[in-house]
Amino acid sequence: MKVFDRPGFPNPARIRIVLAEKGIDPQIEFISVDLIAAEHKQTEFLKKNPSGVLPVLQLDDGTYIAECTAITEYLDTLDGTPTLTGATPRDKAAIHMMQRRAESKLLDAVGNFFHHATPGLGPDLQAYKSPEWAGREEWGRRQRDKAIAGMRYFDGLLHSQRFVAGEAFSMADITVFAGLMFGDAAGIVVPDSHTALSAWRAAVAERPSVKNRSGQTFVADDLRRMGF
Amino acid sequence: MKVFDRPGFPNPARIRIVLAEKGIDPQIEFISVDLIAAEHKQTEFLKKNPSGVLPVLQLDDGTYIAECTAITEYLDTLDGTPTLTGATPRDKAAIHMMQRRAESKLLDAVGNFFHHATPGLGPDLQAYKSPEWAGREEWGRRQRDKAIAGMRYFDGLLHSQRFVAGEAFSMADITVFAGLMFGDAAGIVVPDSHTALSAWRAAVAERPSVKNRSGQTFVADDLRRMGF
Repeated sequence: MKVFDRPGFPNPARIRIVLAEKGIDPQIEFISVDLIAAEHKQTEFLKKNPSGVLPVLQLDDGTYIAECTAITEYLDTLDGTPTLTGATPRDKAAIHMMQRRAESKLLDAVGNFFHHATPGLGPDLQAYKSPEWAGREEWGRRQRDKAIAGMRYFDGLLHSQRFVAGEAFSMADITVFAGLMFGDAAGIVVPDSHTALSAWRAAVAERPSVKNRSGQTFVADDLRRMGF
Repeated sequence: MKVFDRPGFPNPARIRIVLAEKGIDPQIEFISVDLIAAEHKQTEFLKKNPSGVLPVLQLDDGTYIAECTAITEYLDTLDGTPTLTGATPRDKAAIHMMQRRAESKLLDAVGNFFHHATPGLGPDLQAYKSPEWAGREEWGRRQRDKAIAGMRYFDGLLHSQRFVAGEAFSMADITVFAGLMFGDAAGIVVPDSHTALSAWRAAVAERPSVKNRSGQTFVADDLRRMGF
């Protein structure tokens, strides 16, 4: 299998953590896409994923799978023992509910702020991500408010449960974690008062799937190295 | 089990179709939420779903499940024979990928247009759905462009495959169908040139889960009756 991605970015990070959790990263050929030059917005890449976003999984028969939830469902159920997407109807429901909230309340909101109210990843990509229009920056700032409210929501949740979707680690934790990493890079930091969210984050950062990434804390560090 | 919803609206319709497809609608107690009066944005409802959207499934032990994908995963896997969310890793991946695209490229885009660039469901709800800000209407109109592009995407797809996620009906079809219904109500109609999308829609409308709803074609008709 191949994964088209770019190390250090939030959505690619989600799938890299999934692969490490499942212990199948050695089976993957990673192909780096030049995100800064907007390679994923050009015709050749759009044949792989018409939505023009990373990451994309390519199966051995050539089939392309995009969207992190879909890729995670595939990788997690491949061995018949799902550990990240739920093994019972109730767990599946709780995990998918929180996965959607983690995206809409946090990760996507941070991304929308980053791409609309900041210089984002520079002019080549900006032309695709956020064409000029009058309300662009204000919309982006409103998305930052949404992300901040999202942090408060997850902090509240984690005061009474160990992980985002209950007592077990799941793909929803990975999504919130990626959202906070992206928040660091975009200048939306977790308030000190969010003690449960911060304690949860520290625990997730210690998981081998997250920690053992060439000694990096990755995402945030990588983005910072690139000047964002 | 209970479902908190409002008949005739797009997201509630998705779960009503799922329930009919699975043949479990007789087991459900439906509780109508006064959407026009913004009942789902008030404290009591927010305890059920902090995101303040319909529908919400309540399990017999009191647990609330929100988000259509999560509710569908629960209802579809309850009998051990998933028919709408995929039975193999490959099918799950294709269906979840298309479910996400159906939401972001069509249903959510139509909803964003409706709630930001039109009077929506009236002033009581509008205050929550779309508080006043300068670029609000322009952002809504850009979402209409996105929905129109989404229709073109699904039409292209359906020229070479029978259903949205491949050769079998799935939850992704339900989401696109609800998106087109919402589009009718919001004034974003399928162009005549989209022959594959229109033929697929006519076939889906004939499914008993969709057709046998008290003789209504529902959603669009209901919304029209309400004056939208």
